[in-house]
Amino acid sequence: MTATSAFITSLLTSFGIFCGLAFAFGILSKWKINHNIYYPSRILRGDGVSPSATKRNPFTWIKEAVMTSEEELVRVAGLDAAIYLNFFACILEIFGYSALFCVPVLIPIAATSHNNAIQFALDPNQTYEGFDNLAMGNVEEQTPKIWAFLVGTYWVSISTYVVLIKHYKKMIRLRGKEQAHESAKPQQFACLVRDIPAPPKHMSRREQVNTFFKKLHSDTYETCMIVTNVRKLMKIWTKYQASKRNLERAEVVFEESKTNAKPEGTRPMHRLRFFGFVGTKVDSINFYDEEVKDLARAVEIERQRTLKEEQLPAAFVFFNSRRAAAEAAQAVHAPYAMQWQVYPAPEPREVVWNNLAKSVYSRMVRSGVVYFTVFMTVLFYMIPIALISSFTTLDNLVRILPFLKVIVNYKPINTVLQAYLPQVALIVFLALLPALLMFLSRLEGIPSQSHLVRAASGKYFYFIIFNVFLGVTLFGTIFSSLAGFKELLNSKNFSVSSVVTLFGSKLPPVAAYFITFVALQFFVGYGLELSRLVPLIVYHLKKKFMCKTEKELEEAWAPGPFEYHTLVPNDILILMISMAYAVIAPMILLFALLYFAIGYVVLRNQALKVYVPDFESGGRMWPHIHARILAALFIGQITMMGYFGIKKFPYAVLVLILPLFTVFFSSICKLNYYPSFNVMSLAIASEDVKDAPPMRQIVEAYTPECLLSEEDVVYESEEKFEDARSSIGSRSVSRSNSGVLSSTEDLYML
Amino acid sequence: MTATSAFITSLLTSFGIFCGLAFAFGILSKWKINHNIYYPSRILRGDGVSPSATKRNPFTWIKEAVMTSEEELVRVAGLDAAIYLNFFACILEIFGYSALFCVPVLIPIAATSHNNAIQFALDPNQTYEGFDNLAMGNVEEQTPKIWAFLVGTYWVSISTYVVLIKHYKKMIRLRGKEQAHESAKPQQFACLVRDIPAPPKHMSRREQVNTFFKKLHSDTYETCMIVTNVRKLMKIWTKYQASKRNLERAEVVFEESKTNAKPEGTRPMHRLRFFGFVGTKVDSINFYDEEVKDLARAVEIERQRTLKEEQLPAAFVFFNSRRAAAEAAQAVHAPYAMQWQVYPAPEPREVVWNNLAKSVYSRMVRSGVVYFTVFMTVLFYMIPIALISSFTTLDNLVRILPFLKVIVNYKPINTVLQAYLPQVALIVFLALLPALLMFLSRLEGIPSQSHLVRAASGKYFYFIIFNVFLGVTLFGTIFSSLAGFKELLNSKNFSVSSVVTLFGSKLPPVAAYFITFVALQFFVGYGLELSRLVPLIVYHLKKKFMCKTEKELEEAWAPGPFEYHTLVPNDILILMISMAYAVIAPMILLFALLYFAIGYVVLRNQALKVYVPDFESGGRMWPHIHARILAALFIGQITMMGYFGIKKFPYAVLVLILPLFTVFFSSICKLNYYPSFNVMSLAIASEDVKDAPPMRQIVEAYTPECLLSEEDVVYESEEKFEDARSSIGSRSVSRSNSGVLSSTEDLYML
Repeated sequence: MTATSAFITSLLTSFGIFCGLAFAFGILSKWKINHNIYYPSRILRGDGVSPSATKRNPFTWIKEAVMTSEEELVRVAGLDAAIYLNFFACILEIFGYSALFCVPVLIPIAATSHNNAIQFALDPNQTYEGFDNLAMGNVEEQTPKIWAFLVGTYWVSISTYVVLIKHYKKMIRLRGKEQAHESAKPQQFACLVRDIPAPPKHMSRREQVNTFFKKLHSDTYETCMIVTNVRKLMKIWTKYQASKRNLERAEVVFEESKTNAKPEGTRPMHRLRFFGFVGTKVDSINFYDEEVKDLARAVEIERQRTLKEEQLPAAFVFFNSRRAAAEAAQAVHAPYAMQWQVYPAPEPREVVWNNLAKSVYSRMVRSGVVYFTVFMTVLFYMIPIALISSFTTLDNLVRILPFLKVIVNYKPINTVLQAYLPQVALIVFLALLPALLMFLSRLEGIPSQSHLVRAASGKYFYFIIFNVFLGVTLFGTIFSSLAGFKELLNSKNFSVSSVVTLFGSKLPPVAAYFITFVALQFFVGYGLELSRLVPLIVYHLKKKFMCKTEKELEEAWAPGPFEYHTLVPNDILILMISMAYAVIAPMILLFALLYFAIGYVVLRNQALKVYVPDFESGGRMWPHIHARILAALFIGQITMMGYFGIKKFPYAVLVLILPLFTVFFSSICKLNYYPSFNVMSLAIASEDVKDAPPMRQIVEAYTPECLLSEEDVVYESEEKFEDARSSIGSRSVSRSNSGVLSSTEDLYML
Repeated sequence: MTATSAFITSLLTSFGIFCGLAFAFGILSKWKINHNIYYPSRILRGDGVSPSATKRNPFTWIKEAVMTSEEELVRVAGLDAAIYLNFFACILEIFGYSALFCVPVLIPIAATSHNNAIQFALDPNQTYEGFDNLAMGNVEEQTPKIWAFLVGTYWVSISTYVVLIKHYKKMIRLRGKEQAHESAKPQQFACLVRDIPAPPKHMSRREQVNTFFKKLHSDTYETCMIVTNVRKLMKIWTKYQASKRNLERAEVVFEESKTNAKPEGTRPMHRLRFFGFVGTKVDSINFYDEEVKDLARAVEIERQRTLKEEQLPAAFVFFNSRRAAAEAAQAVHAPYAMQWQVYPAPEPREVVWNNLAKSVYSRMVRSGVVYFTVFMTVLFYMIPIALISSFTTLDNLVRILPFLKVIVNYKPINTVLQAYLPQVALIVFLALLPALLMFLSRLEGIPSQSHLVRAASGKYFYFIIFNVFLGVTLFGTIFSSLAGFKELLNSKNFSVSSVVTLFGSKLPPVAAYFITFVALQFFVGYGLELSRLVPLIVYHLKKKFMCKTEKELEEAWAPGPFEYHTLVPNDILILMISMAYAVIAPMILLFALLYFAIGYVVLRNQALKVYVPDFESGGRMWPHIHARILAALFIGQITMMGYFGIKKFPYAVLVLILPLFTVFFSSICKLNYYPSFNVMSLAIASEDVKDAPPMRQIVEAYTPECLLSEEDVVYESEEKFEDARSSIGSRSVSRSNSGVLSSTEDLYML
């Protein structure tokens, strides 16, 4: 029973690592020198490190993480993080209810059956592990005991439906509360307009947009901001920023060189070519000073040119009330709906400027091409994944690479390798993907970062289903016995049902494999997450050797946001595995509960004290997650159908209703709940606003940084709005009509 | 070559029937006595019969049908009919372009090949017809000639895409023009609100709706009309109407009995039970007079009760401008999007009152159940259809029913039967379906007649694909050679590819079958449609024996509307068959062109002179048709892929791009064009209105007839709207605040 011992080893080692890392966190987080790593969010907010940070006991953080209220979480970490953590709570509830039936009822039934022993007696080549006796595989075929597992399938499904409805409503409430907040946000007054048709000859784009919107929204339309192509400007601007930073750095170096021994200091010098190693030596301060001045002029010239000549067929339009913007964002504006497409504006920080003006046809073709690419990648990733899975059993590995025999035959190494090798390979392999997927999603022409994240997450999810879940299960079972593979190749009646049979007969061993996968993922993953060892080391190295200026130091400990596009698909992979095996091997539920419980605590801690969101999408990740929870349930139900068929259970057809209902349920949710996440409802938009940003600030927020000149941009409305009664309240709409500086006014007057 | 002669017989007979019917139309339509049947639409409009109707030559109607302008057609027959006829024009264009390549290039290539002869030489059991030599089946396997057919597939597909885009844009233009018409229609000022939550305790439904909408649309909201449950009232009301009609009829009978011989007349009498055959004899006029009075009182009491007690959670809300209504219909109103769902109001005449207040969950569950039912029905209709197809060959029929031998062996009967028997059986069979499908669609909770029609048409379409197209093709080929059937049953490797092989190898003979189907459908169908023999006979019989009053006579010749829910799927069946065989047997294109050309002329004539639409849906049938044209193309492309595979053409994989592109194209169209049909764009809604119905009339239009009392209903606004500047123009918003009659005011004041 080597696999069982490998399983135990794996669990114990993982747990050991986790304890070590948690302990390290307990120690390291107390040191003041590390506070920038363990409390960056609090420091940036100005809340300071929690009062008792230095003397509290090592478990206080758990209490703090769990006890903090939902409101506080939303305030501190943003709605997106709150919704992500609610997703954990939701899954905990689903698995909690599921375990209530599956663990006390199904495990004893399985444990008191003897199918594995019978099969072993019939065919000693069939191996089984002690662990397998707790799974459905141990139940004899065609016995009434299987009814309990059928009930279990219904139990799990119904728990999921009920909990999902409850949580969707909760999410809508959370989002509504944020949106209706009395202090309004710039994006609530703006809409993004894409696919503006070519303007008539005598009109500028700005006039065209103003004319169109003034006719349709005569009382509420304020002004617009035409999107420009800033690619060229951006290049110069980036150089300019780098130059300024170099200058600053050189000055700091110069200051630092003024020691007591040498009060006049050493002026820093550098060479011009090949990263300062080759070429003429120059005085850095003088050189960068010159460069900064040159580039500032170049930026200004290019800025003027961009504003005049690089206008694109997209714009942000601004309204004088939340309600007007919310209503406009939901309406078809032009007779041909593909022109003048109006969308809710993304938050200013998350706008993907280069994608805004991509035409609808280009977007369509691009996403067609991207999805084809993803499809092909998913398909051809199957091959390496299949190879990895074939190495899953060490025996196979040794057979292929005989020189490994010496190492592998050493007992402890063998056990550890057996436990971890395939999982580690898989995890490393999957780590390469997200960047590629983000890049592909960007090509689609998506206008906002949060949407990009969702698109990449969705693509990653396909990979996970096809490659990890199906791939490992299917290929793992096939390759684990080469005989099985040959059998499949030789069989003339290769068909869906034969695959299902094979698939099902090997399911329980694969369940054990997945349990170790889950365990590794959560113990080691969350340990690393909590202890932040890697950022800690990187920060101290940078601090010691590289950072000179205050700004550079700040960048070195900047915590960054949650990386949802990798986090979410991984969580859903765990969810999917657990859903699929919840009834077949109910033990997995306990591990899944542990995974999501530890995740909930650790990530809540990180959300409150570490990560700082780059932008806020208003919780739009939830419908995305919700759909994938249902997909996991669907796959679980299909798996159960197949498995009941294998157990020759005549009433397996009763399970058929479940996947059908899941599809139906999903469409109900999409129709009824999704619109609440897609747009802002009029009832919410009509809530009173107490504190709104002035229009000038809104327009500025929607201007790319490189288009703003150094002096403050001043908003000047083209017309007097005295007559327009804005619902924002007069205080906030006070616009400074004085102090208009010529350098920026063309931005609004073109 | 009996099948070829059967084919020719079929064509000639059909053509003969068509000529006979067209000739009958030429004669009969000249007689003044028949004008009510041939020109009812013109008569109802008050245009009178066309000036030259009585002396013109028999082909003038063709000229008139074709030459009438699009504007005139829209004016006379409505947008729905115009769009339906444009569908014919669109298909004519697609098949016209397709034929340009397929007929002159592919037919000669097929005709100069010899595959059929070679196959026949190899295996004399294989039969083929002279006709088959013009189809792709005659091209030898693996020859470069097949490239031409590949090009043909691309040619047909690209023609379809190009023509479809052109026509979608045209349809949007047509619809936009109608919607922006300066004389506005009641539905342009109304929205339908469903899923209104339970009102707070102290509020009536009316107050609740008013409060909600006044908050969100303070400047534009006018009033609302709460939907009530009129089921009970409707029963009494129907009795009341029947009673009034009986009274009228009795009076006419009495008047007519006053001949010169007997100037005092005979008072009509009738018995009370069993349709007037049994029971006490009473004086009809007195009896019905009494009954009318009683029922009028009952109606009034029930009306009051309904208005007070039967209010439902749905309402029509009315706005003071088209723009406001259009914008409101597109916005999510409540924080929970499943409450307060706002839709564009259907035209008053097409409202399905009983469905309005069905809750969103009930609608979902209902449509789930209905689609399941339809799915099962589609599945189990396969069995009779398969049987019918097995009779397709007379030989099989005789084998099963030997007593038919005597009749069948008589040569002329044999030929005719061979040609028509299966087609007639199929047509009769399909005629039973539409009523069932309309009934099922009504159960779904659809709020408008036009949507019902589309839903029923969509379901009928599934039947057609699965049963007629796949069913006949698949089962027809299997049963046509019982050997093939046995072969399929015995083969152990029953798989998708073996079915495709069988399917493909029998395709060309089935093509001939379908050509006769098309021919029968169009020659006989359009002949009957044009000559209107059945309505003519029914009308004259009714006129002679049943109709007494003017009203009854009018009902006897009332032409009714186009029955789109049967017409559209049938046209699409023809389209689908032709698409599937356009490249395999290009001859079918000529027949398809003839079908749609004759259809275009005949139906244009009927639209202009005969049918009167019950309601207008604003051309919303087009997206429905468009999606199904693409489905037909998709199925055609899949068929081609299979057939190329059968011809062992190594580049068959090149066809794979086409169905993928079709799916992509379809999603492009859905995203870009569909919104223009789903809602009214703000640009169109903002067009000036010169002539709008007064609000009172709009509200009245949205009140079920049985809720209106005999006196005119008078609109009373709850508030004064003097300050609200309506875009309708002051003339039309003049509401009579005088003359409010107590009997009806509670309708608006509840």
